[in-house]
Amino acid sequence: MGTRRGYHHGNLRRALLDAALAMFVARGSFDFTLRELAREAGVTHNAPYRHFAGKSELLAALREEGFGALAEACRAALVAAGPDDVRARVRALGEAYVRFAVGHPHHFRLMLYDPLGGEGPAPAREPGGAFALLQGSLEEARAAGVVRADLPTREIALAAWALVHGLASLMVERHVPADEARLRRHVKVLDALFFEGASA
Amino acid sequence: MGTRRGYHHGNLRRALLDAALAMFVARGSFDFTLRELAREAGVTHNAPYRHFAGKSELLAALREEGFGALAEACRAALVAAGPDDVRARVRALGEAYVRFAVGHPHHFRLMLYDPLGGEGPAPAREPGGAFALLQGSLEEARAAGVVRADLPTREIALAAWALVHGLASLMVERHVPADEARLRRHVKVLDALFFEGASA
Repeated sequence: MGTRRGYHHGNLRRALLDAALAMFVARGSFDFTLRELAREAGVTHNAPYRHFAGKSELLAALREEGFGALAEACRAALVAAGPDDVRARVRALGEAYVRFAVGHPHHFRLMLYDPLGGEGPAPAREPGGAFALLQGSLEEARAAGVVRADLPTREIALAAWALVHGLASLMVERHVPADEARLRRHVKVLDALFFEGASA
Repeated sequence: MGTRRGYHHGNLRRALLDAALAMFVARGSFDFTLRELAREAGVTHNAPYRHFAGKSELLAALREEGFGALAEACRAALVAAGPDDVRARVRALGEAYVRFAVGHPHHFRLMLYDPLGGEGPAPAREPGGAFALLQGSLEEARAAGVVRADLPTREIALAAWALVHGLASLMVERHVPADEARLRRHVKVLDALFFEGASA
């Protein structure tokens, strides 16, 4: 069960996660075995089992890491937006989501798509996570009289998630160009349509 | 170059496309060679080359087929919505998109994600395709005074696409349950928010 390079416990885990992401980048899929992963990471073929019961546990760890980083990006966006303009806070969260996806396309795919073909655990919408922050900011906006009260905030949050997830996914998959100018423009249009609507 | 089962030319092409989709369903990825595909379809290993120069050409054919079926579903939805209520026509297109994705998750993934890891051709937004129908219905709605005139229809259509693509993707990947009752409810909420906006 030793490792060839003598990783410390935490370093081995990190090295395996990095190698898994690198293999996904190289292959475009998670179609590899833990044995191949061990070879790629330069450790013995049993070493991955010191940290993960199997491949789906390893992918779940990567996914969890991604959701943590997304939530972190969302919290930073709220701090940058400041406390006063509730509409700007909602918009900042949407923009952070799209920027996270464009900046971390492989994590984004692993988190939001289904590389295990239906066998992986559904990602948690944990308290403190991106969705909870979005719903919270919409509740603030409603309390401030900025968001309509005839629909549950939860459903408005789901629509907002769909909107930014759609743009993020279309950009990550290159159906829509993701250069900085277009990203700013699309976020601005989405903000206008989300709050004001498309009606004349 | 003969085939074991003696397919007619058109039947062989169809059999290869069906086998490719079946392998995607079984494996959750397009990580297979044309040789494996030939074995799966029960034809000689050279047979696929009678129709496809390589795997990316075969995937492009499946993708094109999917975009054709999506456009067909959109046209049918417009017919069912009737000519008069322009907002209902836009909504019918959005609902058709989400229903297509939920009903054909593997085609949807192949069409809208990037199973070739960046090497595949970007799918065309062909004239007469789903996006053109959406933009056309928004132009009708604007001409009828129903849609705002201060943003280009093209940008409103992109936002509408992002919205339904996001919901479709979240449902296909099981982040949001896709049962009939929820699908109807979400489409209704998305329609209300898209046209009226989230503002109080």
